[in-house]
Amino acid sequence: MKLTILGCYSATPRTNTNPTSQVLDIRNNLFLIDCGEGTQVQLRKHKIKFSRIKHIFISHLHGDHYFGLVGLISTFRLLTRETDLHIYGPKGLKEVITLQMKLADSWTNYKLIFHELNSKESELIYEDDSVEVHTIPLDHRVYTNGFLFKEKEGERRLKIGDVEDANIDVAYYNKLKQGHDVVNREGVLIDNYKVTFDPHPPKSYAFCSDTAYKEAIVPIIKNVDVLYHESTFIDKHKDLAPKTKHSTAKEAATIAKKAEVGTLILGHYSTRYDDLEAFKTEAQEVFDSVELAEDGKLFEF
Amino acid sequence: MKLTILGCYSATPRTNTNPTSQVLDIRNNLFLIDCGEGTQVQLRKHKIKFSRIKHIFISHLHGDHYFGLVGLISTFRLLTRETDLHIYGPKGLKEVITLQMKLADSWTNYKLIFHELNSKESELIYEDDSVEVHTIPLDHRVYTNGFLFKEKEGERRLKIGDVEDANIDVAYYNKLKQGHDVVNREGVLIDNYKVTFDPHPPKSYAFCSDTAYKEAIVPIIKNVDVLYHESTFIDKHKDLAPKTKHSTAKEAATIAKKAEVGTLILGHYSTRYDDLEAFKTEAQEVFDSVELAEDGKLFEF
Repeated sequence: MKLTILGCYSATPRTNTNPTSQVLDIRNNLFLIDCGEGTQVQLRKHKIKFSRIKHIFISHLHGDHYFGLVGLISTFRLLTRETDLHIYGPKGLKEVITLQMKLADSWTNYKLIFHELNSKESELIYEDDSVEVHTIPLDHRVYTNGFLFKEKEGERRLKIGDVEDANIDVAYYNKLKQGHDVVNREGVLIDNYKVTFDPHPPKSYAFCSDTAYKEAIVPIIKNVDVLYHESTFIDKHKDLAPKTKHSTAKEAATIAKKAEVGTLILGHYSTRYDDLEAFKTEAQEVFDSVELAEDGKLFEF
Repeated sequence: MKLTILGCYSATPRTNTNPTSQVLDIRNNLFLIDCGEGTQVQLRKHKIKFSRIKHIFISHLHGDHYFGLVGLISTFRLLTRETDLHIYGPKGLKEVITLQMKLADSWTNYKLIFHELNSKESELIYEDDSVEVHTIPLDHRVYTNGFLFKEKEGERRLKIGDVEDANIDVAYYNKLKQGHDVVNREGVLIDNYKVTFDPHPPKSYAFCSDTAYKEAIVPIIKNVDVLYHESTFIDKHKDLAPKTKHSTAKEAATIAKKAEVGTLILGHYSTRYDDLEAFKTEAQEVFDSVELAEDGKLFEF
């Protein structure tokens, strides 16, 4: 998985910081997660091909998480997109987007498919050959979901020298990748495990923004490889966290620890802070493996 | 008047170009005209104080002219604005903005006053001590208005040396500025014209974007000092202009010539052109005084 942070600040877009948006690349399928104002410019800046985005996930209907969506939809239209676009987000999203299209008398040529969410329980909302996406119900001022991306196990990988030594016809390579034993050119049955490696272990990524500290998500995100958890505040402003239904860096780290995740990425910083180091330092008091999201940063895992 | 171009390109925001938005400064009152995505970042970049904007004029409900508005309104809220904000624009604007505030459960603390427009005739929509704003009904794919800003005549200006020589008490200076004759310290009546200059001639600015070629606007914008008129296309693509209800540079210049304006500013360029010089060259075949709008450019008149 490759995760590109397009924006990781809360509240308002500024000259050098962007509101929330990120692109997750899973085996060359791009999933756009949240879409604050300016997301399409960030996509251009980071040379991410618009046409490769087929699924967009919106966590909640605060502006810093979706005000860039209607413009992106409209730009797809101007770029004469033909591919379907699936949008997952809270109930109300379809109404607000279609109202804007109606007022502009500008309808998309491509199919726009809304999957509106209103369940309070985690649910499977998307599935294909390589990935499942589940919601992570969060605790915020309006209805909000995080999203859990769980890669499925991939194919077995050929030990290419051994396969050749075993004199197996190329026509059988796909069967090998699927785990079958096959017969070689001399009619000998070859054990699969002798000529293949195990598949890469499937990865998982959980995106949690925005939310107050919520332990109930721990079982849902248990053992994920990477958790992005909002940390709007550092300890100095911890009194603001419950009021605004946001988390501190330490709270994010506590969730990461309880869920035994691989790495925690912090983000959704309040724009009051000029320096982000305190977020990392405070989180590391609770949990070791902490990274700071930054606009434009790429994480590979 | 000081006009700052925040964005002057059509269609989609890109890394280095912005959709339509401009700020007109008339005697220190700021009027924001159109508000494409990214306008608030452009305001920050050009160090224009958000709090000084009290009136926003939206020409029409295509995204490249107003998708930045809801974010700006929301940023005003986060900056704890208290001053009223007046928004002038087509019917429908209030519904789409309030729907987004409702979905976010985030209402402004300041008063948001919508003045929805639906007249097909030019009308006076705003007036204060120093300026009148009239609509300019345009011809576009959806209901669209340009805006005419007409400064009112200012105060007479003191010839400060002469006023002192005439031995006039400072208490009378305001009366002089208002055009009255006054009595000096020795009881002599002083003619106003001897100690004052005429006021600066009032200026006028017309903003016309987007529109097909429409001669009916000529009487409304007759003799304005500065006309901003859209020129989406150059001659090479003139067949696209009537289809899309836009204008070419030459058509903009023809309007400028017929209206006998002082200066024509071109803008709303299609993003297909890398070089803008052809816009100027073609317009100047018809009308002499032509300027090119560019993002960030300041015009003073």
